[in-house]
Formats: sequence, C-alpha cells, structure tokens
Amino acid sequence: MPQIDPAFVATSHAVGDLTLCHVRLQDDARYPWLVLIPKGEGLREIEDLTAGDRAELMEEIVRVGQALRVLGEALGAPPEKLNVGALGNVTPQLHVHVVGRRRDDPAWPGPVWGFGAAEPYPADVLAYATETTRRALDI
Amino acid sequence: MPQIDPAFVATSHAVGDLTLCHVRLQDDARYPWLVLIPKGEGLREIEDLTAGDRAELMEEIVRVGQALRVLGEALGAPPEKLNVGALGNVTPQLHVHVVGRRRDDPAWPGPVWGFGAAEPYPADVLAYATETTRRALDI
Repeated sequence: MPQIDPAFVATSHAVGDLTLCHVRLQDDARYPWLVLIPKGEGLREIEDLTAGDRAELMEEIVRVGQALRVLGEALGAPPEKLNVGALGNVTPQLHVHVVGRRRDDPAWPGPVWGFGAAEPYPADVLAYATETTRRALDI
Repeated sequence: MPQIDPAFVATSHAVGDLTLCHVRLQDDARYPWLVLIPKGEGLREIEDLTAGDRAELMEEIVRVGQALRVLGEALGAPPEKLNVGALGNVTPQLHVHVVGRRRDDPAWPGPVWGFGAAEPYPADVLAYATETTRRALDI
C-alpha cells in the first residue's frame, strides 16, 4: 500500500492494488463507490503522471467501473450511470472517484461529493462488498 | 461540429475541435470551465470508447487543463486546482468537464456541478475568453 492521506483511511477501506493504483471502497452504502489512488509520491494533478501512467489510469477507471457494476448488482442495486471525478479540493493527494449512480439514489442527479452524510456499511455487508469487488477486479 | 445535445448549446459556446473531442467553453464566469465532447455517435460512458480513444481523451483532458490555466491567468484568476468530472446524469451524451478551481471561488471546496446559478460572461469577455482558449489549444 502506498503512502496515503489519512483522510482516505477514515472514509474508505482497502480493496487491493492494480498496476498503477491502490483501490479503496468508499464506506458509504448509499452508492457503490471506489477510489483509485495512483501509487506515486507527491501527485496532485492528472498532468503530474507520465503519459503512459495516464493511459493506465484511464484503463483502471474503466476496469473499476466494470467492477462497480458487479458490486451494485451483488448489493441489489445495479448502477444505471457511472460518474467519474478527480477533484482533490479537500484531500490534495491525486485520486479518482468512480461511483455507480441510479435514478433512485439520494443525490441523483447531482454529484455525490459533499452531498449529505455517508452511511457506513454494516460489517457483514462491508466484508461481502470488499470481497465481491476484489473478485470482480481479479486481485 | 458533431451532433451535440441541445443542453450543451444552451449552456456553453463552441471553442473548436481536438482530434477526439469538440471543446466548449461553459458560459459561467464563476470558474474557467471547458467541456470535452467526444465526437462519436451514441457514446454515454467512457467504456464506450475504444482503448485508443480513451488514451486520447486522457491527453485531451490534460491539454484542456493547461489551456484553463492560461485562461484563468488571462481573466485574472489563475486556477489552484483542476477538477475533472464525467457525470452525465442530466445530459447523457458522453462529456468531460474540466474546471479551474480556486479557494476563493463560490463553490469551493465542493463540486461546481449543480451549485447555484451560472453567471454568463459579458459579450466582450466571452469573445476574449474563447479566443484565449483557442490560442492556448492552438486550434
């Protein structure tokens, strides 16, 4: 696991590592939501990555989106739309959110960031969601 | 110009075309904000693009982010952070927002999407902003 900002530890759980990114499950049962954190040091903007790493990041975004479809299905709420966001206004370490959205989710059609309070997963659901994501990502 | 959803026409102005994407300036003087619209038909998710087009999209996101730095500087408010988002909950045609953010902008540190009402550029500033962006993108 790379050096990651403590803010990620407080709000998400480690799933595993892809080639470029560490993957975390956001601890918010309102939406299937994964966070990709590129493993290099001192990264803040996408442009800080090499072109090769940027292409890899894009492929990992797609791969994580496909895992979110599996996760949402497993949790009984398949995503209807994927949302991808690289913000970093609050936590500057470069990271990309990939979120499965549905017309019946609480923030729809607005963005999830900053919307209401997270609803942590019950422990058994968290374990199931993490394992389901790991299998979907084959990690 | 590709077939674009009328929602884009109502909220933004054409800047020009890169290899993959049509580029538009969001008509909102609160933030320097460009929208990339990949030119293919029927695209809704990033995964709908080929891997080659996805890598190109990533490079165009970076290029547009650099143009936003030039634009923000020209308008007297250089971006301190770039925000990148592909949502599409309201307008399903695939598009990517790239926004220059500052600690003194009205939505900081929250996302810009769905925050308050757009403040259209005065006509002379719009013309200057569009031309500045075009030059920065060399299109």
